Amino acid sequence: MRRLLLIGIGTGNPEHVTIQAVRALNAAEVVFLIGKGDAKADLVRVRREICERYIEGPQPRFVAAADPARDRTPADYGVAVDDWHAARAELYEDLVAKNLGDNGCGAFLVWGDPALYDSTIRIIDRIHARGRLAFDVEVIPGITSVQALAAGHRIALNGIGEPVTITTGRRLAADLSADGATVVMLDGKVDFAGLDPNLTIHWGAYLGTSDELLIAGRLGDVAELIRETRRTARARHGWIMDIYRLARPAT
Amino acid sequence: MRRLLLIGIGTGNPEHVTIQAVRALNAAEVVFLIGKGDAKADLVRVRREICERYIEGPQPRFVAAADPARDRTPADYGVAVDDWHAARAELYEDLVAKNLGDNGCGAFLVWGDPALYDSTIRIIDRIHARGRLAFDVEVIPGITSVQALAAGHRIALNGIGEPVTITTGRRLAADLSADGATVVMLDGKVDFAGLDPNLTIHWGAYLGTSDELLIAGRLGDVAELIRETRRTARARHGWIMDIYRLARPAT
Ligand SMILES: C[S@@+](CC[C@H](N)C(=O)[O-])C[C@H]1O[C@@H](n2cnc3c(N)ncnc32)[C@H](O)[C@@H]1O
Ligand SMILES: C[S@@+](CC[C@H](N)C(=O)[O-])C[C@H]1O[C@@H](n2cnc3c(N)ncnc32)[C@H](O)[C@@H]1O
Repeated sequence: MRRLLLIGIGTGNPEHVTIQAVRALNAAEVVFLIGKGDAKADLVRVRREICERYIEGPQPRFVAAADPARDRTPADYGVAVDDWHAARAELYEDLVAKNLGDNGCGAFLVWGDPALYDSTIRIIDRIHARGRLAFDVEVIPGITSVQALAAGHRIALNGIGEPVTITTGRRLAADLSADGATVVMLDGKVDFAGLDPNLTIHWGAYLGTSDELLIAGRLGDVAELIRETRRTARARHGWIMDIYRLARPAT
Repeated sequence: MRRLLLIGIGTGNPEHVTIQAVRALNAAEVVFLIGKGDAKADLVRVRREICERYIEGPQPRFVAAADPARDRTPADYGVAVDDWHAARAELYEDLVAKNLGDNGCGAFLVWGDPALYDSTIRIIDRIHARGRLAFDVEVIPGITSVQALAAGHRIALNGIGEPVTITTGRRLAADLSADGATVVMLDGKVDFAGLDPNLTIHWGAYLGTSDELLIAGRLGDVAELIRETRRTARARHGWIMDIYRLARPAT
């Protein structure tokens, strides 16, 4: 049976990879490298570096492709995502069919953990559902940016016995936890509009990399510093990936 | 300067450890093994196995101790936790002071990730605040049981663009997410009382170990199977660690 490994590779530090991921990488004959076609070349470099560092013996065959373009200002968000996933399912199916034999083992390297705000599992499920390609799937968990944030700041994500909500910038206003902590990912703006200035924030960017940035404090006190740091860093790198945790101040 | 490494070791599979954790383990002169003083000897074995497997050259010195007893039926939950943390801070401070020189490097192995429902970071912060012992702290993230659950079931934690709340059995009724997914840890009962039978559940126990159990389906259909599987497994092992995700059925 054909095998597809969806391997979480952590979020920027090549040493985030697990022994399980290293073993999986070494089992793959083909590694699919799907680029976002954007400026984040550094992120592709981390993937290459991981393969070079941890694969022993002959390197697998690398099959590179660019993700289909995505409608960034859709009339209907749900429909746009669905269209995009459909296009990606076709592309990935094609790549697998053309590059992997009936008993071959291929790997997709996923940023962070495949379970968190990543669509690779959903795409592979779609291919499965189409029924044209037979394969087994294995998911190998990886360190998420949420964990890299907590480790960088040396904090617990949850208050004692309290919940943690992980959400997106888009949904923050609706999902901000009243009595627990909230971690916000995928926030393109990071303007903190409408938030209580007395919240405690732990913010991090380029986590795990040598460019890691960390700022923490009372939101009202550090909001401007974070926005400014973010602007400068983004201009310098051409891109930014950042994440933050909000919570009531510890008592 | 004295260094303390709080190393996440994953949740049962020794191959969950990251390269960063392996490197940290190898830097430690002393490894503190804190037992819970309960039946979970298997969990202590995983820690030992990780050290034996991944530490090259001479093994570090192991310092074993049992955590102070905890009041399991306190009148006031917050006060009881605080007392318990205070007792543990004293114990850990003592262990470090006695076993690690001024420039020594010691490691605490933490189940899963130190950031998630674990008190090691808080205890170390307490020792820091007491001001009697000078040290630097580094946190090394590890694969959490939440990720092991998602990987085992090959599912994403979040619906597309939707939030995920991680909470405890104690808080489930209050924290069940209306329009996102909810992951429940530390549930001693797992009776699903009062939950909508139309929710989709993904349940897992002993995740990452060779005893891993996975059950998924419509809650109303599988609740009894999960309760029964849990009872039997718990009786056989003498303990159980399980976790589950609840969400509205995918549309
Ligand atoms: C599409 S999601 C992918 C998340 C990934 N699967 C994970 O497990 O972290 C991308 C978002 O993750 C966060 N992120 C990923 N890597 C990051 C890093 N190195 N530093 C800061 N944030 C990061 C940012 O919030 C970014 O918008
Ligand atoms: C005190 S918390 C520690 C969590 C840990 N720090 C983590 O990152 O997963 C213990 C809870 O984690 C969950 N858990 C830990 N290991 C598990 C495993 N191997 N299988 C299933 N659940 C597990 C259970 O819900 C258990 O009650």
